[in-house]
Amino acid sequence: MVAKGLVDKLRSIIGSGSERVGLTARGVEQLRAQLRECAEGQGGEVSARARAARLAETYLGLNDEGRHRFLKLIALEFGPDPAKVATAHAAYQKAIGTSDQWKAEAAMRVAMRSSRIRILTQFNAIPQGVKFLVDLRADLLRYLEDDRELAVLDRELESRLSAWFDVGFLELQRITWNSPAALLEKLIEYEAVHEIRSWTDLKNRVDSDRRLYAFFHPRMPAEPLIFVEVALTDHLADNVQALLDEHAPVFDHRKADTAIFYSISNTQVGLRGVSFGNFLLKRVIDDLKRDFSKLANFATLSPMPAMAAWLRKNPQALAEAGIELSQEELSTGTWAADKKLARSLRDPLSRLGARYLASAKQGGGEAGPPFDPVSRFHLGNGARVERINYLGDSSAKGFRQSFGLMVNYLYSPDDIETNLEAFASQGSIAMSATVRRLAKRS
Amino acid sequence: MVAKGLVDKLRSIIGSGSERVGLTARGVEQLRAQLRECAEGQGGEVSARARAARLAETYLGLNDEGRHRFLKLIALEFGPDPAKVATAHAAYQKAIGTSDQWKAEAAMRVAMRSSRIRILTQFNAIPQGVKFLVDLRADLLRYLEDDRELAVLDRELESRLSAWFDVGFLELQRITWNSPAALLEKLIEYEAVHEIRSWTDLKNRVDSDRRLYAFFHPRMPAEPLIFVEVALTDHLADNVQALLDEHAPVFDHRKADTAIFYSISNTQVGLRGVSFGNFLLKRVIDDLKRDFSKLANFATLSPMPAMAAWLRKNPQALAEAGIELSQEELSTGTWAADKKLARSLRDPLSRLGARYLASAKQGGGEAGPPFDPVSRFHLGNGARVERINYLGDSSAKGFRQSFGLMVNYLYSPDDIETNLEAFASQGSIAMSATVRRLAKRS
Amino acid sequence: MVAKGLVDKLRSIIGSGSERVGLTARGVEQLRAQLRECAEGQGGEVSARARAARLAETYLGLNDEGRHRFLKLIALEFGPDPAKVATAHAAYQKAIGTSDQWKAEAAMRVAMRSSRIRILTQFNAIPQGVKFLVDLRADLLRYLEDDRELAVLDRELESRLSAWFDVGFLELQRITWNSPAALLEKLIEYEAVHEIRSWTDLKNRVDSDRRLYAFFHPRMPAEPLIFVEVALTDHLADNVQALLDEHAPVFDHRKADTAIFYSISNTQVGLRGVSFGNFLLKRVIDDLKRDFSKLANFATLSPMPAMAAWLRKNPQALAEAGIELSQEELSTGTWAADKKLARSLRDPLSRLGARYLASAKQGGGEAGPPFDPVSRFHLGNGARVERINYLGDSSAKGFRQSFGLMVNYLYSPDDIETNLEAFASQGSIAMSATVRRLAKRS
Amino acid sequence: MVAKGLVDKLRSIIGSGSERVGLTARGVEQLRAQLRECAEGQGGEVSARARAARLAETYLGLNDEGRHRFLKLIALEFGPDPAKVATAHAAYQKAIGTSDQWKAEAAMRVAMRSSRIRILTQFNAIPQGVKFLVDLRADLLRYLEDDRELAVLDRELESRLSAWFDVGFLELQRITWNSPAALLEKLIEYEAVHEIRSWTDLKNRVDSDRRLYAFFHPRMPAEPLIFVEVALTDHLADNVQALLDEHAPVFDHRKADTAIFYSISNTQVGLRGVSFGNFLLKRVIDDLKRDFSKLANFATLSPMPAMAAWLRKNPQALAEAGIELSQEELSTGTWAADKKLARSLRDPLSRLGARYLASAKQGGGEAGPPFDPVSRFHLGNGARVERINYLGDSSAKGFRQSFGLMVNYLYSPDDIETNLEAFASQGSIAMSATVRRLAKRS
Repeated sequence: MVAKGLVDKLRSIIGSGSERVGLTARGVEQLRAQLRECAEGQGGEVSARARAARLAETYLGLNDEGRHRFLKLIALEFGPDPAKVATAHAAYQKAIGTSDQWKAEAAMRVAMRSSRIRILTQFNAIPQGVKFLVDLRADLLRYLEDDRELAVLDRELESRLSAWFDVGFLELQRITWNSPAALLEKLIEYEAVHEIRSWTDLKNRVDSDRRLYAFFHPRMPAEPLIFVEVALTDHLADNVQALLDEHAPVFDHRKADTAIFYSISNTQVGLRGVSFGNFLLKRVIDDLKRDFSKLANFATLSPMPAMAAWLRKNPQALAEAGIELSQEELSTGTWAADKKLARSLRDPLSRLGARYLASAKQGGGEAGPPFDPVSRFHLGNGARVERINYLGDSSAKGFRQSFGLMVNYLYSPDDIETNLEAFASQGSIAMSATVRRLAKRS
Repeated sequence: MVAKGLVDKLRSIIGSGSERVGLTARGVEQLRAQLRECAEGQGGEVSARARAARLAETYLGLNDEGRHRFLKLIALEFGPDPAKVATAHAAYQKAIGTSDQWKAEAAMRVAMRSSRIRILTQFNAIPQGVKFLVDLRADLLRYLEDDRELAVLDRELESRLSAWFDVGFLELQRITWNSPAALLEKLIEYEAVHEIRSWTDLKNRVDSDRRLYAFFHPRMPAEPLIFVEVALTDHLADNVQALLDEHAPVFDHRKADTAIFYSISNTQVGLRGVSFGNFLLKRVIDDLKRDFSKLANFATLSPMPAMAAWLRKNPQALAEAGIELSQEELSTGTWAADKKLARSLRDPLSRLGARYLASAKQGGGEAGPPFDPVSRFHLGNGARVERINYLGDSSAKGFRQSFGLMVNYLYSPDDIETNLEAFASQGSIAMSATVRRLAKRS
Repeated sequence: MVAKGLVDKLRSIIGSGSERVGLTARGVEQLRAQLRECAEGQGGEVSARARAARLAETYLGLNDEGRHRFLKLIALEFGPDPAKVATAHAAYQKAIGTSDQWKAEAAMRVAMRSSRIRILTQFNAIPQGVKFLVDLRADLLRYLEDDRELAVLDRELESRLSAWFDVGFLELQRITWNSPAALLEKLIEYEAVHEIRSWTDLKNRVDSDRRLYAFFHPRMPAEPLIFVEVALTDHLADNVQALLDEHAPVFDHRKADTAIFYSISNTQVGLRGVSFGNFLLKRVIDDLKRDFSKLANFATLSPMPAMAAWLRKNPQALAEAGIELSQEELSTGTWAADKKLARSLRDPLSRLGARYLASAKQGGGEAGPPFDPVSRFHLGNGARVERINYLGDSSAKGFRQSFGLMVNYLYSPDDIETNLEAFASQGSIAMSATVRRLAKRS
Repeated sequence: MVAKGLVDKLRSIIGSGSERVGLTARGVEQLRAQLRECAEGQGGEVSARARAARLAETYLGLNDEGRHRFLKLIALEFGPDPAKVATAHAAYQKAIGTSDQWKAEAAMRVAMRSSRIRILTQFNAIPQGVKFLVDLRADLLRYLEDDRELAVLDRELESRLSAWFDVGFLELQRITWNSPAALLEKLIEYEAVHEIRSWTDLKNRVDSDRRLYAFFHPRMPAEPLIFVEVALTDHLADNVQALLDEHAPVFDHRKADTAIFYSISNTQVGLRGVSFGNFLLKRVIDDLKRDFSKLANFATLSPMPAMAAWLRKNPQALAEAGIELSQEELSTGTWAADKKLARSLRDPLSRLGARYLASAKQGGGEAGPPFDPVSRFHLGNGARVERINYLGDSSAKGFRQSFGLMVNYLYSPDDIETNLEAFASQGSIAMSATVRRLAKRS
C-alpha cells in the first residue's frame, strides 16, 4: 500500500539524510504536472489522496535545494488569479451598502482562494500527514529566512495549522513514569531549557513531588506539542540545580503549597506562531488545584536567555550597575567559586538583572515588547516579575546566558487579568516592590 | 464554573424549549458590546474564552427570532472594512509581476479577514464547543432559507468546519452490541433511511452477519457523524424487508462473498457541504476486505427517495412507461397485494425506475447532475447502477417515495476510477447492460 | 482450533437444548478412559488442556441425564484412595507432638487430594473456562437435590470456586448508560427483585439520580456476578413504584443525603455459597461517599420475599395481628383499592410484618437465623430493621410475597460492627424503636 | 485509611530495611491474640479485613527474625486439631463402601482444614495483597532452608497460590518500547539470564526484529511474572553477544523464518513451584505464528548454568574429554584470546558440553532428571538438544558457568508431544544426531 510505503520511506529517509537528491529540470516539469493534477482534484477523492501520498514521497526524497524549489513552485504558481480577483473586487466595492454586499463579499473570498492550501491539506489524509505538514513548515521557515517570496505560502500554511491546532482540539495529559517509554524518550530529546541527562534524571522529574504535563493533538498522539515541568514544594524555589538534584529527598507532596514551573518547552518548530503556551499554564493550574487543595502559589523558576545578548548590545550597563568584571569574565562563572567575590557581586549583578527585565526592549528603544522572550511569554500571560535569583543556575549554560541569574514569575490568580490587560494595552511590566526597587537603585 | 454551567444549561434548554426568550432592544445593544469585546480579543486568551462561554449561554437562551438576530448581527457588522480592502487590493494589483506580489497578496488576505470567524471559533474552547458550532450552523441554515444575507456568515463557517472536519481527522469505528448504549441510542435517533424500530431491531443490525461503521471526530466522541449499515451475504440483496427481518436466520459470515450497504445516514445537519461519505465507503471496504478475505462484491441496496417528487413534475412519464394507475394509486401500495396486478406492473414500473435513474436531472433539463440525491452520491463515488429491484421496499415509505422500487449500486473496484472520472467530466452515468436496456425499452 | 470450536458449540447448544443427547454404556466407558487420562495428566500440559477441551465438548453435548452421570463418575471414581488415607493418618497421629508432625500433616493432605479437582480445574484454561465451571456447578446443584452422593464433588468445587472468586479478585464497576449494550442487556436478564421492563426502564435506573454497581471477575469480564441499584434521594424511600416511575422528575443528585439500595441481584446460580454481597455494599458505600460528600444515610428498600410462605405455616398469626381477611384475599391486593379497608389494614398488617421480621426463624422455633433470606443477608451485614412500609410494593408480586409490605434496612456506619457482632453471636436482631414497638403491640 | 497507610508503609520499609524491628515476648502474645481473632473471623468480613491489614503492617515492620517467628506461630499453632481429624477419619473409614462414604469424606476434609490458610488469604483483600503474599512466601522459602517445620505452611500457601495463579488466569502481553517506563524498568531489574545494561540495551531488545512477551496476573498488573525475549532471524543463532549487539543492523523481520528464545526469566521467587513457563512458550509461539506467517523454526539460545558446578563434582570428565586445562583456567576465558588454543579446544569442550547435557543427572547417578535446570525445563516442554555453540557466550558469566558454551534447544511442533512423553515416562533426552555423536565420540 502507498500509505505503508510512505511511513517506511519516512523512516529510512529520516535515518539517512545522505540519500536525498536534488530536483532536475525534468523533475521540475513532472512535479509541476503532479501539482496541477493535485490542485484540480481530478478523479475521486480517493485517487486525489493517493496522488498526495506520491507527492509526499517525492518531497521526502529531495535534498534541501530540491525541497526549496518544490515549495517555491507551490508558492508562486498556485496562487489566485489577479484578473479574477480584480473583477470580484470591483463587484464587491460596487455592492457595498446594497443587499448584494454579502454575496459579493463571499464571491471575493472565492476569487482569493488559492490552490496552495488545497494541495497542502491533501497531505492530511496520509498516515502521519499532520506531522508531515508540521515538519514541512519547519523546512519552509528555514528557507524563508533567505527567500521572502515563500512568505505568502507560509502565511496560508500557518493559518491552516492555526485552525487545526486550535487549543480547543488539544488534550492535556499528565505524563508519569507509567507513560510509554517511547514518549518519555521524546521528552529527553525535546527538553529545551534544562537538559535531561539520563533516564534517572527523567524519573526524578516525574517523581511524587513533581508533575509533568503536555498538550497533544489527536492526530499526532505520540508527539507532545509543548510540555511543562512542575515541582511541588513549600517555598519559592530559587535554584534550579537544587530542583534537579536526583539525590535530593522527595518532598511530601501533601504538604505542598507552592507549584514551581521550572521548564517549558515547545517541541514543534513547524508550529511557530501557533500559540498554546498560555492555555497550557491555565489548564495545568486548574489540574493542580484539583489534586492539591493546599496549593496557593503558582510561580516559575525561569531563565533569562537573552540577557547576555542584550548586554553585548549595551556594554555600558555593566559599569552603570557597578560591575568591574567584563562580560567575558562574568560568562565563565569562575568568579562564583571565589566566595568573597561572589558576595560582592550579589547586589550589582542582581540589579543588572532587574534592570534588564524592567527596561530592555525589542528594537532597543524605550518602548516595545520586552527583549527577553521568556519575559514576553510570562508577562503576556499575566504574571509578574517576583524575584531575581542570584546564582540560581550555576550551569555553564546558566552563566553563559545570564551570569547565573534566574527569575521567578508569579502567577497570582487575582492579578492575572489586570496584569495582562495593562501589559497588552500600555506595555506595563508588573513587578514586585523588591525587584522594582532593585532596578531603580543606583 | 462557567463551563459546567454551560453544559447544564445546554441540557436544561434542550429539554425545555419553552424557556427560550427573545432579544430585546436593550439586549441587542448588550450583545453588540459583547461581540465587539470578543472580536477585539481584549484581555488574555483565558478571559476571551470566558467571554465566549457567556456568549454561548446567551445564544442558547434565545428563541429562534433572537438567534436569527444574533447571527445577523455577526454577519453584517463584523465583516471586513471595504475601504481597507480597496487599499490592499490596489497595492496588490500594482505589485503583480514584481517581487512584492506575494507580500501584497498576503496583505490582501489580512484585509479580507473578518471578525466573524474569530468570534465563532472562540466557542471551540468551551466544553462541547464543536458540537455547539455544528448545531449553531444547523440554526443558521434554517434561517438562511428566508434570509440570504446570512450566506456570507454561512460560507465562512462552512469553510472553518471543513478545515476542522477534514477527513484526515476523522476516525472510523466499528459499532457493535458491545458499544455504549448511549451511542447505540443515537443511531436509533439518527437513522434516516430505514427506521430502527426497537433495541431488538438494532441488535439485529449489529449481529454477526452485519457490520455497522461510523465516522467520529475527536472532539465529538459521542456523536457519530455518518454511519453505514452493511449486510454480509452471498448474493445481491433485492429486498430490504428481508434484510431487516429480525427472525431471519443469521447468515454464516465466513461464507460471505458480498457486502451490501443498505443504509447510509448523515447525522449532523450543521455539517451540510462538508462531505465525508465517499471516504467512509472507501475505508469501510478496506476494513471489510481485511476481515473477510472471500468478499468480492460491494454493492448497495438503495432507496430512490426523489422518484415520486420527480414524477409529480413529469406526470407523462407514467403513460410513456405503459402504466395506467395514477401516481396516487401507485403510492398507496395496495396494488401490491393483488398478485395479478403486481405481476403486470413489474415490467413497466421497473422501466419507469430505470428511466428515472438514467435521465432525470436536477434543473429538469437533459444535462446536469442526477435528480436523485442518493444517485448523485453513489455515481459521484464511482458506483454504477446495477439492478432495479421491483417491490424491494414494501414499507409505506417505500411506496410513497418510489412505489416500492429500490436499486443496487455496484462498487466494482476496477471500474470506480473510470466511472467517477466519466461522471465528473461528462456526467456519464454508469449502468449495467440490463438496466440500460430496461431504460431504453419501450 | 479446538477453542474456537468450543465457543461455537457452546453457543449452538445453549441456543438449542434439543440437540443434546444421552450417555450410552459405551459412552460411559469412553468417558471413564478420558477422565483417567485427564486425572493422570499424561503428556505435556498443552495436550492435557486439549483433552480438557474435548471433555468440555462432550459435557456440553449431553442432556441432563448424561451430565448427571458424567458428574457422578467424577464424584465416585476419582476420590482419594481410602487405604492410602488410612496409612497417612496412622503416621500423622503417631507423629503428633514430635518434630515430624508437620511433615506428616502435609503427607496426610497429599493423601486426601483427589483427582476430581484436578480434572475440573483443567477446564480453566479453555476460553470461557471459568464460566463453563460456574455453569457446570449450576447443573451440579440441580442434580444434587435428588442425589446427595454428588455432595462431595460439590464441596470440592465450591472450595475451588471460593478461592478463585475471593473478593480480593473482584472488581467493582459502576455501570452507566455508556456501558456496553451487551452488558446492560444482561442486567435486564438477571434482575431478580424488580423486573426491568424495557430499555427505557433500564435507562431510568442509571440516570443522574441513580447508581448501579456490579462486581466482576477478571476472567468473566462480560458477566456481572452481583449488582446493586441505588437511588440518590433526600428521604428514606418508602415505595418502590415511585422509585421506578420513569416519568418521575430527576432528583438533583447534588442535594442527595440518602442512598437507597433498592435492588440487589446475584446472577450466577453456580456460585451459591461463594459470598461477596456484604463486601459489595461496603465498597459501594465507600464509592458513593467519595462522590457525594453530603451523603449521610445508607439504607435499603427491601422486599420480604418469604413472608407469605411463613404465613402459610403460621396461619394463626393473622388473627393474632387482628386481621380478618384470609391470606388468599390479602394476596390479591384488590383490598388496596378500597380506601377505607386499606386504611383499616394499615396497622394490623404493618404489625404482622414487624412480627415476621422480629421472630420468624428458620426451622420454625424461637431461635435460629431469620426466616426471611433478605433479612438474613442484611442483618448479617450489620444493618438494622428501620421501618415497615405499608403498601410499599403494590405490584402483583409485591402482594403475593408480602401483601404489599416492604422494609427499610438501615446501615448506620457507627453501629454496623456492634449489630453484626450481636447478630452473629446471639442472634439479636437490631431494630428501630418504632418497629420494635410495632412488633410488640397487640 | 488503613489501606493507604499500608501502601506507604510498604514503600518506606522496602526503601529502608534498617527500621525493621524484632518481636518481643509481649509482641508474640499480642500477635497470637491477633492471629486468633483473625482465624476465628469474629465480626463482619469488613472488620476481619481491617484486622488483616493491621497484621500485614505488623509483619512488614518486623526484621527477619521477627518474621520467622511470625510465620512459625502460624505454622505450628493454627493447624488442624489431631483429635478431630482422628474422629473424622474413623467415621470415614467406617463409611467406605456405604452410601455415607462421600459425606464422610467431605467431613474429613473439613476436619483437615487449617486456620493457617484462612489467615493468609485474608491478606488478599488489602491493596497489593497478592503481591504481599507472594513476597511473604519468598521470605518463607528463605527461612525454610534452615527450619523444616515451616514446610507445612509452605505447602498450604503454595497450594493456594497455585490455585490463584492457574495459567487460565494469566494474561500474555507483548511488551514494546511503547510500554510504560515503570514496567520496562522492572525488566531491567528482573532479567536473570543476560543482564540489561542500559535503556539503550533494553530498547534494542524490543526493536522491530525482536519480541518480548510476559505473563501477568490480573491482581498484579504492574508485575511481569515471567518473560521471554525473542529474536526474529533467518538462522539458528549461535552467539548471544551478536544478538545483544546494540550496533548490529536491524534484521528485516518480514524475512524472518526463525524465532530464537534467548532469555527466559522468572521474576517472583515467592511463586516457586507454581509453573507457567511451558504455557508461556506455547502461547508465544502461537502469537508469533499469527504475526509472521513465514516462521518455521522455533529454538532457544540457552545457557548451561550448572555445567561448572557439575564439573566440580566430576573433575575426571575434563581428562575424559581430552582437555588439559584446569577448570579454573577454563573459567577465566583468557584462553579464548589465544586463537590457536581456542581452535584446539573447540572439539573437546563441545564434547564435554554434549556429554554434560546427555548424561549429567540430578543426584549424580545414571538416571533421574537432568542436572542442568534449563535443560530440565526445555526437555520437559518437549524440546530437543539441537546444537552446542562453542564460544556462544564470551561474557565473564558465560565462561564462569559453562566455559563459553551455549546450546540451542529446538521446538519442532511435530515432535513436541513425542519428546515430552518419552522424557516424562522414561527420562529419554531428545537430541539431534550431531550432538548425540558429539557426546559419544571419544
